[in-house]
Amino acid sequence: MKNFILKNENAIYYEANFSCDNVIFLSLGSENFFITDARYTLEAKQNVKNCEVIESSDLVEAAKNILNKNQIKELIFDPNDFSYATYSNLAKDMQTIFKQELNFSKTKRLIKNDDEIKLLKKASMLGKDGFKNFAKYIKKQGLKKSEDFLYFKAFENMSQTGKLNISFEPIVAINENAAKPHALPTTKKLRQNDLLLVDAGVKYKRYCSDRTCTSAVDFENFSFEREQKFKNKKHQRIYDIVYKAQTTAIKKARSGMKASQIDKIARDIITKAGYGEFFVHSTGHGVGLDIHEFPNINTKNDLIIEDNMVFTVEPGIYLPNEFGVRIEDTVVMKNGKAIIL
Amino acid sequence: MKNFILKNENAIYYEANFSCDNVIFLSLGSENFFITDARYTLEAKQNVKNCEVIESSDLVEAAKNILNKNQIKELIFDPNDFSYATYSNLAKDMQTIFKQELNFSKTKRLIKNDDEIKLLKKASMLGKDGFKNFAKYIKKQGLKKSEDFLYFKAFENMSQTGKLNISFEPIVAINENAAKPHALPTTKKLRQNDLLLVDAGVKYKRYCSDRTCTSAVDFENFSFEREQKFKNKKHQRIYDIVYKAQTTAIKKARSGMKASQIDKIARDIITKAGYGEFFVHSTGHGVGLDIHEFPNINTKNDLIIEDNMVFTVEPGIYLPNEFGVRIEDTVVMKNGKAIIL
Repeated sequence: MKNFILKNENAIYYEANFSCDNVIFLSLGSENFFITDARYTLEAKQNVKNCEVIESSDLVEAAKNILNKNQIKELIFDPNDFSYATYSNLAKDMQTIFKQELNFSKTKRLIKNDDEIKLLKKASMLGKDGFKNFAKYIKKQGLKKSEDFLYFKAFENMSQTGKLNISFEPIVAINENAAKPHALPTTKKLRQNDLLLVDAGVKYKRYCSDRTCTSAVDFENFSFEREQKFKNKKHQRIYDIVYKAQTTAIKKARSGMKASQIDKIARDIITKAGYGEFFVHSTGHGVGLDIHEFPNINTKNDLIIEDNMVFTVEPGIYLPNEFGVRIEDTVVMKNGKAIIL
Repeated sequence: MKNFILKNENAIYYEANFSCDNVIFLSLGSENFFITDARYTLEAKQNVKNCEVIESSDLVEAAKNILNKNQIKELIFDPNDFSYATYSNLAKDMQTIFKQELNFSKTKRLIKNDDEIKLLKKASMLGKDGFKNFAKYIKKQGLKKSEDFLYFKAFENMSQTGKLNISFEPIVAINENAAKPHALPTTKKLRQNDLLLVDAGVKYKRYCSDRTCTSAVDFENFSFEREQKFKNKKHQRIYDIVYKAQTTAIKKARSGMKASQIDKIARDIITKAGYGEFFVHSTGHGVGLDIHEFPNINTKNDLIIEDNMVFTVEPGIYLPNEFGVRIEDTVVMKNGKAIIL
């Protein structure tokens, strides 16, 4: 077994069944060490699995002592997981050889086990509940509410008024603001026949959900369902293209394909419709403890997709100063096919 | 003038008057470069001061090209600001000598200018408004509301229902949960005569506010004012000690003192009252674009406090499984004395 060191909170949760914002984790053959400060040791001891909890006010120093005591010759670390300062302190005056392995933990977490898939499914269901309740709010009271107020209402509905953590800050964007893939909420107000894009998710036992809906704003009949009737014909045309790209990619995705082939299915439909240059991002990303995990579903990734991988399928078309449409679901590969969580 | 490179969003905002989540900033003598990707270049060009905006899909590569073109011999970087991976890419095959300067930007930002102090004052006023509105809510409707619901209501009131960004996730903790300095909200419900600790802040034009109030829960007469009447005598005794420590430290703080002397004023009062071991953190921290800046007000920091430094004064006593009290204001040093913002 490889020896490794971790600092990332989610990477450590995956190994130890517990985590906190100040911890170093060491895996040395059959022995694991969860090194944290006095604020967290009690809770750590109650929750960690297969780890010894070490309390220290200097985590790096404590890690070095354990490495020296166990005469560890080689240790894997992820160069994205450590600042230059922390790595320098760690490696200073040590016999241990620190071996870079980029995305070490994310690669380990690429294929989810059945327990993880259950948690991701539950997170997705809770996320969908949030969208449903937010839709009810918009239908009743959304008229003339500003994006920043609706952003707050998205947070309220997704989090069940504080009960759940959200997996990222919701995106709530009207018309031309939806043309920015990472729009920040403004004071712009919601009106009948607007286009509304909402991208939001929640966490269940630390596992994330992620979903985007683009909707026609009709206060008589508002929903985040996939069937949408836009008054504006261009809205409808673009929506239909993105919807076709998204559903086709999900329908045709197979275990054994390259990630880039799934991207291509979605991208080809948008390109053939004449909007390829306005699909400015990749088709999807893995989802798990982190909101962005592996596999990346983009034009360049030749990774072979396998059963039990979980990722988003989220093509979009962004027409600057006009509007944008993105439709996103999170899927799990099962028996060779993609199933929406 | 020293040449330097920055990656931290707030550090870059301080130099360039604009920032985003994917940028490298280079300062080379009289020339500054704001290197970002296509998503941000338009907004960057509209907002940066004294910078050339460079668009690139590979920020590190673009920075290396500029360094080579300008034959830069030496460049300062903060080893906390770069991951080991990014630093390795940056320094690879370069003639430039990369010189570590820990906390380079935070040190520059230690003494605030008058414009910054105005923004920090405004943030503090907005933060106090949030506390006032949250107090009104609690008085009217707080009875039997859970911590996680009240956490949500803190966010609602502090952010003015989504209008303002918050400077950190609010802490809302009842009785024994307040004994954990970094408590996460639970389903525990608020009752008459409980003790309630709330630590929260907002941002105004990216500058942070930070304040903590500990209150006696009396639904007839609830407030976050400093004068508090607790039914529970131990609550009152501990509150009075912390309040004395906090107000005395603010009253006696002087420009020219060491940071550690201000810590000592607060700590001595708590120690003499017999609770020194339960004051488990430092007395304060700087506040600015980051919620945690310099100066640190702790037992070890011998930095000389000067006019126009801005920091928190926030002693606390935490009695495990019983309750905790923390009282916090943010102050600015002016004419040698500390003034509450």
